[in-house]
Amino acid sequence: MSLLQDSDTENFIPTIDDVRDAARQLSGHAVRTPLLESRLLNERVGGRVLIKAEVLQRTGSFKFRGAFNHISRLNKDQLQGGIVAYSSGNHAQGVALAATLNDTTATIIMPADAPASKIANTQKYGASVVTYDRNSGNREAIGEKLCKETGARLVRPYDDPWVIAGQGTTGLEIAEQCREKEILLDAVLAPAGGGGLIAGTALAMKSDMPGAEIYCCEPEGFDDYRRSLISGQREANVPGPTSICDAIVTPMPGELTFPINKELLSGGFAVTDAEVEHAMAVAFSDLKIVVEPGGAVALAAVLSGKFDATGKTITVVTSGGNVDPAAFADIVNRHSV
Amino acid sequence: MSLLQDSDTENFIPTIDDVRDAARQLSGHAVRTPLLESRLLNERVGGRVLIKAEVLQRTGSFKFRGAFNHISRLNKDQLQGGIVAYSSGNHAQGVALAATLNDTTATIIMPADAPASKIANTQKYGASVVTYDRNSGNREAIGEKLCKETGARLVRPYDDPWVIAGQGTTGLEIAEQCREKEILLDAVLAPAGGGGLIAGTALAMKSDMPGAEIYCCEPEGFDDYRRSLISGQREANVPGPTSICDAIVTPMPGELTFPINKELLSGGFAVTDAEVEHAMAVAFSDLKIVVEPGGAVALAAVLSGKFDATGKTITVVTSGGNVDPAAFADIVNRHSV
Repeated sequence: MSLLQDSDTENFIPTIDDVRDAARQLSGHAVRTPLLESRLLNERVGGRVLIKAEVLQRTGSFKFRGAFNHISRLNKDQLQGGIVAYSSGNHAQGVALAATLNDTTATIIMPADAPASKIANTQKYGASVVTYDRNSGNREAIGEKLCKETGARLVRPYDDPWVIAGQGTTGLEIAEQCREKEILLDAVLAPAGGGGLIAGTALAMKSDMPGAEIYCCEPEGFDDYRRSLISGQREANVPGPTSICDAIVTPMPGELTFPINKELLSGGFAVTDAEVEHAMAVAFSDLKIVVEPGGAVALAAVLSGKFDATGKTITVVTSGGNVDPAAFADIVNRHSV
Repeated sequence: MSLLQDSDTENFIPTIDDVRDAARQLSGHAVRTPLLESRLLNERVGGRVLIKAEVLQRTGSFKFRGAFNHISRLNKDQLQGGIVAYSSGNHAQGVALAATLNDTTATIIMPADAPASKIANTQKYGASVVTYDRNSGNREAIGEKLCKETGARLVRPYDDPWVIAGQGTTGLEIAEQCREKEILLDAVLAPAGGGGLIAGTALAMKSDMPGAEIYCCEPEGFDDYRRSLISGQREANVPGPTSICDAIVTPMPGELTFPINKELLSGGFAVTDAEVEHAMAVAFSDLKIVVEPGGAVALAAVLSGKFDATGKTITVVTSGGNVDPAAFADIVNRHSV
C-alpha cells in the first residue's frame, strides 16, 4: 500500500503517526543503532551523555532511514524511471542503497568538492553520480531537469514527509532505549542541516519522552536554524563563511521541517570548526567511533560547554561517520584530548 | 555468594556453566555489544561478515567482561587489600574500572612501552600504574611480590577461570544475536593472546551454535597458539620478532586456556603487520569503528584471504580499540582501501 499515489499529497507536514509508520517500514531494514556511553566522556562534562551512534547505521549515517522510508513505499510504476537525489554525500549514499535494495536505479547530483569517499561509496552502493560546482550550480534545478527528462522520481534530502518521518525513527529508538534503561532524559541534541533529522526526532521525543528539551546544533556561519528559531521565521545564511562540516552547510531551514522545529525545539547552538575537531577526537578516544565533522556538532556543543550538561542526562546524536581518512587522521593527530 | 572462598579451587578449567553464570554476573554491568554488518565489507570478501564490536565494550575492549566477573564475586575481606594485575593495557583498563565499580583499589603492572593512551586511561579509571621493562622485567614475579607485600589479590589476564568465563559471554551474545536474526554461522574468528577470549567464546559457541568452526588469529611471529593447536602441546614463541599488535604478543598459550582451545578450536591463522593495518583501515572506512592492531587480527585473516570467507557467513570479533591517535592516523593515512 503506497501513500504516494497522488503527487498532490506529497507536501504535507508529517506527524508522530508518520514516524511510527516509518518505524514499521524500516523494521528489518535499518539498524537499531546502539546508545553508547563512556565513563570518560561523562567525567569530561560532569553529566551523563548517551551517544546515539548513527555512524553505525547502514551507509554510515541516519540518511538511510529517510531514503528507505520513501523509496520502499513506491510502486513499480513509480520506481520504473529510477530515483534522482541531490546531496552533499550522506543522503546520496542512503538513496543509492535504498534504490538498489528496491531494485531500481539512482542518479545522485553531488558537489564536485564532496569528500572523495562519499562519492566513491555512493557509486559502490550502485548509483550514478553527476557532479556540479557548489558555487555556481543550482542542484535543485539540475535535479528537476533530470527528472523531467528521464521520468525519474526526486527524493529530496529533507523537505519530504517520508524522509522526515524516516529520520524520526532515530528519536523513537532513543526514547525506547532510554526507557529500557529506566532513564529519563533532560535533553536531546542533534545536528541540523535542512532540519529533517531534528524535526523527526522532535516529533518522536515529544510523544514518547515529552520532558526532554530538544536542541539543534550547527556550524558557526551556518546557524540559520538557530537564528530562525529566535526570529520565528526562516532565515538564510549569509554567503561567505566556510566550514569543515560539509554535510550540513545548507542555505536555510526547510519548508516542511521549520514548522515542526519552530513548535518543538527549545533552541540551537553554533560551534566552531575547532570545537568540532575536538569532539571528533574525543569520539575517537572515548567511544571508539568515527564521526565526520557535520556529525559531531552536537557533541561539540556539549564538550564546549555551550550546552551545559552538568548534572544532566542527555542524548547526543552523532549523525554520520563518512569522512576521508586523510582528513580524519589530520584531525585526531592535532587534537590531544 | 562468592565462589572464590577457597583458593584451592581457583585453578579449575571453566565450563559452559561458568560462562552462563558470568552472563548473569555481568548483566546490567557489561555492554551487550552490537553485531555490525557492512554491505561494502561483505562485497570485499564475497561472504557475509558480522562484526562483534568489542571496541564498544566498556573500557574499549572485551577485557572488562572477565575482570568484572572475577572482581565482583569477591567478598569484602578479599577486596580489602585491593587488586593487582599485569597487562599490556586492555586487561589493565578492565581491572581498573571493575575495581573502582566494586569500591576497591587496583595497581596495574604495565610495560613502559605500552601505548600512552592505555596507561593514561588505566589511571583515569582509578588505578595506580607501575611500569616495567618488557625485555628485562618479569611481570608475573613483580605481581606476585606486590601481592605478598600488600595483601592484594592478583587477577591474571587469562589463566583465571572467572576471567575466561567472563570473556566467554562474548560468545553467548554472538550466538544469541545470530539466532535473533535467524543466522547460522559457519565460523567465528577471534584474536588470541593468552587465549582467554577465544576459549570462553568457543565454550559458548560449541554449546549454543555447535555447527560453527572456531579459529584463533595471531600476529606472525607470535603464532604460538596456531602452532600449539597443530602440535597438540603448548609451544612458546621464539624471541626476536616484533609486532604492532601490542595487546596480544604473549609468550605462549595459557595453562587453563589451552586444554579448552585444544579440544574446541579448528585451527589458527597468523597475519602480518601490513595485513593488520589494512584491516584497521577497512574497519574505519566500512564500519566507522576504531580498532587497535591486536583487535584487528581476525578481520585481517579474513580480508587477506588466509581464511576464505567466500560464500560463508561468519562472525569476526574486533576485540579492542585502544590505540594512540598518532598511530591510528598514520595507519589510515597510509592504507587506501
